Amino acid sequence: MLTNRHIVIMGGDARQIEVINRLTSLDAHLSLVGFDQLDRNFNGASKLNMDEINAKEVDSIILPVSGTDHEGNVETTFSNKTVKLSKEWLAETPEHCTVYSGISTPYLNTISEDTQREVVKLFARDDVAIYNSIPTVEGTLMMVIQNTDITIHQANVIVLGLGRTGMSIARVFHALGANVKVGSRNPEQIARAVEMGVKAFYLKELEKEVEDNEICINTIPALVLTSKVLSKMPASSFIIDIASLPGGTDFRYAKKRGIKAMITPGLPGMVAPKTAGRIIANVLAELLLQKFAEEDES
Amino acid sequence: MLTNRHIVIMGGDARQIEVINRLTSLDAHLSLVGFDQLDRNFNGASKLNMDEINAKEVDSIILPVSGTDHEGNVETTFSNKTVKLSKEWLAETPEHCTVYSGISTPYLNTISEDTQREVVKLFARDDVAIYNSIPTVEGTLMMVIQNTDITIHQANVIVLGLGRTGMSIARVFHALGANVKVGSRNPEQIARAVEMGVKAFYLKELEKEVEDNEICINTIPALVLTSKVLSKMPASSFIIDIASLPGGTDFRYAKKRGIKAMITPGLPGMVAPKTAGRIIANVLAELLLQKFAEEDES
Amino acid sequence: MLTNRHIVIMGGDARQIEVINRLTSLDAHLSLVGFDQLDRNFNGASKLNMDEINAKEVDSIILPVSGTDHEGNVETTFSNKTVKLSKEWLAETPEHCTVYSGISTPYLNTISEDTQREVVKLFARDDVAIYNSIPTVEGTLMMVIQNTDITIHQANVIVLGLGRTGMSIARVFHALGANVKVGSRNPEQIARAVEMGVKAFYLKELEKEVEDNEICINTIPALVLTSKVLSKMPASSFIIDIASLPGGTDFRYAKKRGIKAMITPGLPGMVAPKTAGRIIANVLAELLLQKFAEEDES
Amino acid sequence: MLTNRHIVIMGGDARQIEVINRLTSLDAHLSLVGFDQLDRNFNGASKLNMDEINAKEVDSIILPVSGTDHEGNVETTFSNKTVKLSKEWLAETPEHCTVYSGISTPYLNTISEDTQREVVKLFARDDVAIYNSIPTVEGTLMMVIQNTDITIHQANVIVLGLGRTGMSIARVFHALGANVKVGSRNPEQIARAVEMGVKAFYLKELEKEVEDNEICINTIPALVLTSKVLSKMPASSFIIDIASLPGGTDFRYAKKRGIKAMITPGLPGMVAPKTAGRIIANVLAELLLQKFAEEDES
Ligand SMILES: NC(=O)c1ccc[n+]([C@@H]2O[C@H](COP(=O)([O-])OP(=O)(O)OC[C@H]3O[C@@H](n4cnc5c(N)ncnc54)[C@H](OP(=O)(O)O)[C@@H]3O)[C@@H](O)[C@H]2O)c1
Ligand SMILES: NC(=O)c1ccc[n+]([C@@H]2O[C@H](COP(=O)([O-])OP(=O)(O)OC[C@H]3O[C@@H](n4cnc5c(N)ncnc54)[C@H](OP(=O)(O)O)[C@@H]3O)[C@@H](O)[C@H]2O)c1
Ligand SMILES: NC(=O)c1ccc[n+]([C@@H]2O[C@H](COP(=O)([O-])OP(=O)(O)OC[C@H]3O[C@@H](n4cnc5c(N)ncnc54)[C@H](OP(=O)(O)O)[C@@H]3O)[C@@H](O)[C@H]2O)c1
Ligand SMILES: NC(=O)c1ccc[n+]([C@@H]2O[C@H](COP(=O)([O-])OP(=O)(O)OC[C@H]3O[C@@H](n4cnc5c(N)ncnc54)[C@H](OP(=O)(O)O)[C@@H]3O)[C@@H](O)[C@H]2O)c1
Repeated sequence: MLTNRHIVIMGGDARQIEVINRLTSLDAHLSLVGFDQLDRNFNGASKLNMDEINAKEVDSIILPVSGTDHEGNVETTFSNKTVKLSKEWLAETPEHCTVYSGISTPYLNTISEDTQREVVKLFARDDVAIYNSIPTVEGTLMMVIQNTDITIHQANVIVLGLGRTGMSIARVFHALGANVKVGSRNPEQIARAVEMGVKAFYLKELEKEVEDNEICINTIPALVLTSKVLSKMPASSFIIDIASLPGGTDFRYAKKRGIKAMITPGLPGMVAPKTAGRIIANVLAELLLQKFAEEDES
Repeated sequence: MLTNRHIVIMGGDARQIEVINRLTSLDAHLSLVGFDQLDRNFNGASKLNMDEINAKEVDSIILPVSGTDHEGNVETTFSNKTVKLSKEWLAETPEHCTVYSGISTPYLNTISEDTQREVVKLFARDDVAIYNSIPTVEGTLMMVIQNTDITIHQANVIVLGLGRTGMSIARVFHALGANVKVGSRNPEQIARAVEMGVKAFYLKELEKEVEDNEICINTIPALVLTSKVLSKMPASSFIIDIASLPGGTDFRYAKKRGIKAMITPGLPGMVAPKTAGRIIANVLAELLLQKFAEEDES
Repeated sequence: MLTNRHIVIMGGDARQIEVINRLTSLDAHLSLVGFDQLDRNFNGASKLNMDEINAKEVDSIILPVSGTDHEGNVETTFSNKTVKLSKEWLAETPEHCTVYSGISTPYLNTISEDTQREVVKLFARDDVAIYNSIPTVEGTLMMVIQNTDITIHQANVIVLGLGRTGMSIARVFHALGANVKVGSRNPEQIARAVEMGVKAFYLKELEKEVEDNEICINTIPALVLTSKVLSKMPASSFIIDIASLPGGTDFRYAKKRGIKAMITPGLPGMVAPKTAGRIIANVLAELLLQKFAEEDES
Repeated sequence: MLTNRHIVIMGGDARQIEVINRLTSLDAHLSLVGFDQLDRNFNGASKLNMDEINAKEVDSIILPVSGTDHEGNVETTFSNKTVKLSKEWLAETPEHCTVYSGISTPYLNTISEDTQREVVKLFARDDVAIYNSIPTVEGTLMMVIQNTDITIHQANVIVLGLGRTGMSIARVFHALGANVKVGSRNPEQIARAVEMGVKAFYLKELEKEVEDNEICINTIPALVLTSKVLSKMPASSFIIDIASLPGGTDFRYAKKRGIKAMITPGLPGMVAPKTAGRIIANVLAELLLQKFAEEDES
């Protein structure tokens, strides 16, 4: 249990509601900043402003998935007020106070170093990336179904990258009956693709492999769908690029060639906010329980 | 090949374009009625009005998936003109002239009987129903992803009916990682569900089985989701009813109880018109080739 | 419950032990004939000879899967004595007394007609055939793994027939990563194979389709793997014929051509006697409960 | 191509025949040592003794999967003669001469260091381990089917470890309809198991999780199935331990408790020697082509 642990939740979207639910069920003492427009109350949680919270009594701080901007402000779906994590405020927290963020940002890195407070990046964890791949797959499915006039079943589908997300995508598109071909630079991933029952090729062959492509799903955060590659792809193809911005596609050239190409960040929060929230809530609960158990021991 | 066979295609939507493509590639002689607004021409096919066609020289007539209305008019996505298959006109065709329609309608039954011309209902065929189940599944997937805030993965999903469409739905939702439970009245379907690796129950247990339901997909064309059943289902459930109109759900009661319930006819044409068209084109091609081969023999 | 119902179990193998377990757990009164060498006792069940049982008091008779031979004798794995169901004895049972057998035999048909007692053939039921397809698949897997020097994964596998057993076989071999091709005469089965994600062809193309075959699994109880077909198949192929005797393979010719071909009856009892027994026990329990419930009502 | 490359193949079993086939098809010049009893000849390959080969002209040496014993002798399925790779002989090869072995052995490590010749361990490569997991899975399937009286379908199956082999095992047993539960110490593997649609638990919960186990497959090369764990497992369970010797099971205790437990090394060569050979041949061909291409460039 998290009894008597004081945790500040600063901003965020619908996903944080699952976090709040989970932590209150573990009996934590929560301060919610940036939730004034949320039409709901939670046992053991108070809606406050930053200046109403005594930093000295804070055990953990939970930021939104996106962390902060370069001035320390966080996204607040449920508030119009500015919510900021300042270096000064953080410096006043106890030494053991940890900050949890989805991703790291330059601002967070700086204040973390300056104040010697630990910042945990949840989305850098392999397990979180894999759990998140599940709603990401479903978002990809939806986008593909919406944006093509053929079925995924029996379509020629290329999946670029067989990392944590690519593996889930390849598995599901194969299960749906697509002719899946995985492109990777990595012999281990080539082997795994073969084991999973799909075709595989080395990325250096990409130009040749796209010739009969109908649907291409990119997960590689590097420019792989170059103009040279795109020039070999049928103009009727559909490209969905889920790699982090700016993606791995030469979108300007795709447009010129008449290929429909989309970059789709944030699929989990978009198609399954509740599940996406639970993923964060589960990992946070596990990490917090573990951390405080260790502290109690030492 | 269909060389020298005169086939009239009367109305329809984008799916008929696949039919036209396919039949022209088999060298048929096509008359297209109700395509005046279609911005495309086809080798061996002329856009005409009914009165420009000599019924005596027609070997086959292809109607839209929906057949005709009660006056004999057909849907025409690519025309504003009325296109009608009259009994008189049909009676003038050669005896061997066959009418192909997606479904049967009272009007078609009547003129078929009166003129002694065969009407083939493509969608009554098992193979067509199974092929059509593929885009239907993908449409269902899309609707479910759009209308829930959780993932299909690990959701509690009930599929009602394990017929031609239900089996495809159950297979795909299981592959996506849902906790699928199939409800059926038929011991054979119960056994097949078990073999496929999903749970199964007899419909008479439905009331009890819906208690922890999150997503319910109905394929049974009979009132199964009665108010009594719905009263046991969590209000946060999502129901998608794909059974033919009026579906198998007490929609009035669902609304009252706050359960989101949708009936979704025409999924294949909606999410994958090209594939849906090809399904029709493939079966039509096979049937026509077979028919004329038999005629030539006799 | 089956309280006070007197059921005679005549002969059979390890599978009947599951039946005995199940029926005693339903409180039936059992007489076991042909189990003298079985080193185990059951509550509510007595080991007897036929002449120790009063036919007039028997509600149901359960025969082995194989029924009787042409003289009425049944297989008895757990006894050396002859156990026979005679017409005379059966005639003395009450009119409602039903005989349950795996399959029908000429002898059973005759005495059933003569005595007007119903004989239920469990293995003719669709649900039983589907449940039995599960251990059949696993037996087939084992035979194939043992008898080839390649993996099923990426092997060219032909499955003949997509009936109750063929569908389960095709599903599993596909899931294992084989290149599965289904041969059938039935357009509905062709469509289902395509939906399942495997290739499909009409049986009339069989000769052409076997040319690169590595593993062929036949489920069709008719001569389909003729010498003409086999002459086109690589000599290194492995054929497993699970269709009921005499199978669908020209074994003489296969041998001549050097193709390893096996007929494998009775796979479920061989590889999973316990599961095979439970399948029978479940259906028997369901049928008996239903029957006596109906009798009680009328 | 490998034209004019002189490669010595020293000993090995049926798998080396696939290697020989592959390398001769790439036009390599092969010397086969330890194949005198093999009833077959290959174009471009001569059967020789070590002393007939001029070490100075050797570009690569291929050892069996098992490498050498502590004196440098290799396994020779196709010869009764002793075949030894001596330090002296190896020292005479050109500097670029590389030794390919399945695994490393103390003797190989020593002579590799002393002579400064590279030894490549094929089975330490991730891709090889994954390709090998495919026949390993099929061997595991066969052993489980042979050694249990229930079907894998609906059996309670625990898979310990979700590494390169465990993932393939979990995938296939899940596809066969088993109730698969994966045990791991690694949060990433727990997440992947969940994504794949199976249950997952942390190894520290193992004792509790085995209580209803029917089949347990261990891939962890560390003692995990301790006497304490085994004491909680039903005595009717079947354990197959595929981890490298001595496995991860307390076999002595398992026997005492009456649990059937087997350790099964070498499954790929046992159930699919041809595929196992091709896996080695493919990787060897890729490595050799790459190596000589690099040499030519420099
Ligand atoms: N749109 C969304 O909603 C959404 C959701 C989830 C993830 N994402 C994004 O999707 C991307 C993939 O995520 P992930 O979790 O799957 O990451 P990951 O596990 O790191 O996988 C990345 C894949 O890309 C390959 N790769 C990386 N750099 C490469 C390069 N320069 N050339 C060739 N291949 C390269 C990797 O292969 P190697 O192993 O050889 O490096 C691997 O196959 C990330 O950018 C992530 O932010 C977006
Ligand atoms: N929305 C769309 O886009 C779309 C697409 C495809 C199909 N559909 C519609 O979906 C429905 C199912 O199509 P299908 O091809 O799967 O049909 P199907 O093969 O006939 O299957 C119907 C299923 O419903 C069961 N059923 C029928 N009447 C029943 C009753 N009175 N009580 C209990 N169970 C009953 C059947 O079981 P038994 O075997 O016991 O009868 C079977 O499981 C049809 O209405 C069809 O028009 C809609
Ligand atoms: N060896 C074992 O342990 C074992 C276990 C289970 C079953 N079996 C045997 O396996 C066979 C198949 O069983 P099942 O339950 O799958 O039967 P099923 O459902 O009747 O399927 C039979 C299949 O064969 C096709 N077929 C039948 N006669 C044909 C013919 N003359 N030409 C072409 N195709 C034909 C059927 O297609 P249509 O629909 O077009 O007729 C169907 O695809 C039976 O003989 C059964 O006794 C053996
Ligand atoms: N019998 C055969 O024919 C055959 C065939 C193939 C492989 N094998 C053997 O099978 C074993 C697995 O091979 P692999 O390729 O799958 O290896 P792998 O990829 O290294 O996987 C090993 C698994 O064991 C876990 N593990 C290792 N040490 C552990 C420990 N001390 N405590 C808990 N978990 C531990 C690993 O988890 P972490 O990631 O947390 O370390 C991983 O899940 C090896 O011993 C291999 O030699 C045998």
